Amino acid sequence: MQIAIVLYEGFTALDAIGPYQTLSPLPDAETVFVAENPGPVSDDSGTLTVVAKKALTEVPRPDLVVVPGGPPENVGRQMRNEAMLGWLRAADATSTWTTSVCTGSLLLAAAGLLTGRRATTHWLSLESLKEFGAEPTGERVVFAGKYVTAAGVSSGIDMGLTLAGRIAGGTYAQGIQLMTEYDPQPPYDAGSPEKAPAELVAKFRNGG
Amino acid sequence: MQIAIVLYEGFTALDAIGPYQTLSPLPDAETVFVAENPGPVSDDSGTLTVVAKKALTEVPRPDLVVVPGGPPENVGRQMRNEAMLGWLRAADATSTWTTSVCTGSLLLAAAGLLTGRRATTHWLSLESLKEFGAEPTGERVVFAGKYVTAAGVSSGIDMGLTLAGRIAGGTYAQGIQLMTEYDPQPPYDAGSPEKAPAELVAKFRNGG
Repeated sequence: MQIAIVLYEGFTALDAIGPYQTLSPLPDAETVFVAENPGPVSDDSGTLTVVAKKALTEVPRPDLVVVPGGPPENVGRQMRNEAMLGWLRAADATSTWTTSVCTGSLLLAAAGLLTGRRATTHWLSLESLKEFGAEPTGERVVFAGKYVTAAGVSSGIDMGLTLAGRIAGGTYAQGIQLMTEYDPQPPYDAGSPEKAPAELVAKFRNGG
Repeated sequence: MQIAIVLYEGFTALDAIGPYQTLSPLPDAETVFVAENPGPVSDDSGTLTVVAKKALTEVPRPDLVVVPGGPPENVGRQMRNEAMLGWLRAADATSTWTTSVCTGSLLLAAAGLLTGRRATTHWLSLESLKEFGAEPTGERVVFAGKYVTAAGVSSGIDMGLTLAGRIAGGTYAQGIQLMTEYDPQPPYDAGSPEKAPAELVAKFRNGG
C-alpha cells in the first residue's frame, strides 16, 4: 500500500505529521512525501522545512492520499494550481482512500472531489467548504465513502488512527495508539469553538 | 525567546512536531530546528527528512530546549555522542526550560541533567530512565523545576500546551489549543499500558 502525503509551500506541520505518525506503521505501507517538485518545502511559519522525496508526477497512483491544510492564503494558491488539482483528480481516480486534514479539504473540494459529500475542515473554514460544494459538518473525522476529512490541525491524529483501524483492524490500530502513547490529557478544554471561551472564538473569527 | 528543537538521525517525527506546533506560536518566539550539523536529518523510518537550519554550536544559549525521542538504539547513539551531551549541558546551564518528549529524556538523563529529578519517558523506557539516575513517574507531563519531560510521542502536544500556559498564560495557551483544534477524540482507549489490552502491552514489551 502506497501512502502519499502531499506537501506544498506553507502547509501546517502537524496536519501532515499526525496522519504520517499513525498511518505509516500500517502493514506493508510505503509512505512518501510528495510535492509538485521534489526538494525542500517550508511550512506555514517558514521554520520547518521538510524534504519532498518525489514529484507528484512520480507518484501517479497512490492507494492513500493525505492532503494537509494550511492558512487559507497558502491553500488558496494550491486551489488555483492546475498541476496540483490535476494530480489530485488523477490520483483520486484510482485511490482506495482520499483524505485531508484541516483546510486540505478545501483543496479536495476545489478539485471537485467533495461535491455533494459530507466533509469537514478547520472550524474557521466551514463556510468556505460549503462554497466549494461540500456539505460541511462539525464532526472531527468524517467518512463519506472513500473520502475521509478531518477537522483542524491535530484532528489528523484521530483520522489516522480511525483509518488505520478500518484498514488493518482495531487491534492493529490500538497498537499504533499504544506505541504513540496517544492518551491525550490536554491541560485546557478549549479545543473547539463550542468549548473555548467565547471571546477567544470571536477574536479568531475576527482575524486573530 | 529562542526555542531550539534538537534533531538527530532516527528521531521520532511527532515527538518534535507536537511541541513545535504548540510552542512556536508563543509571543516573540523564534524557533529553530538544530542538529549536530545543519542539513537534512531523517526520522526513525527514514521516510521523513527535516532540514536542521543551524548547527548546535550556532545556537549556544536557547531559552527553551526541546529534545525529541526515538527508538532506543537511535537515542542510544546520541547518549554516547559527546558533542550532543556537551551541548545539552551547556545549553541547560543558561536555559529557562529544558524539556524532552518520549525517550528524549534518556538523553537529558545521560547528560546528567535529570539526576534525582522526577521525570517521564515512553512507557517502555521507564526502567532505563531509572538506570540513568532519574525518578521515573507514569505521569504524562512532569514538571521538576525547569525540567519538563513528557511521556511517549503524542504527549509532546500536551507538554507544549501546558508549557505555553506557564509561559504566556492560560488564555494564550487556550488560543493555541483552539487554533490547532486540539479536542482529541481517539477512536480507541488504548493509549497507555494501563488502558490497552494486556496482550498488546505484553507483545510490545516482548519486542513488538
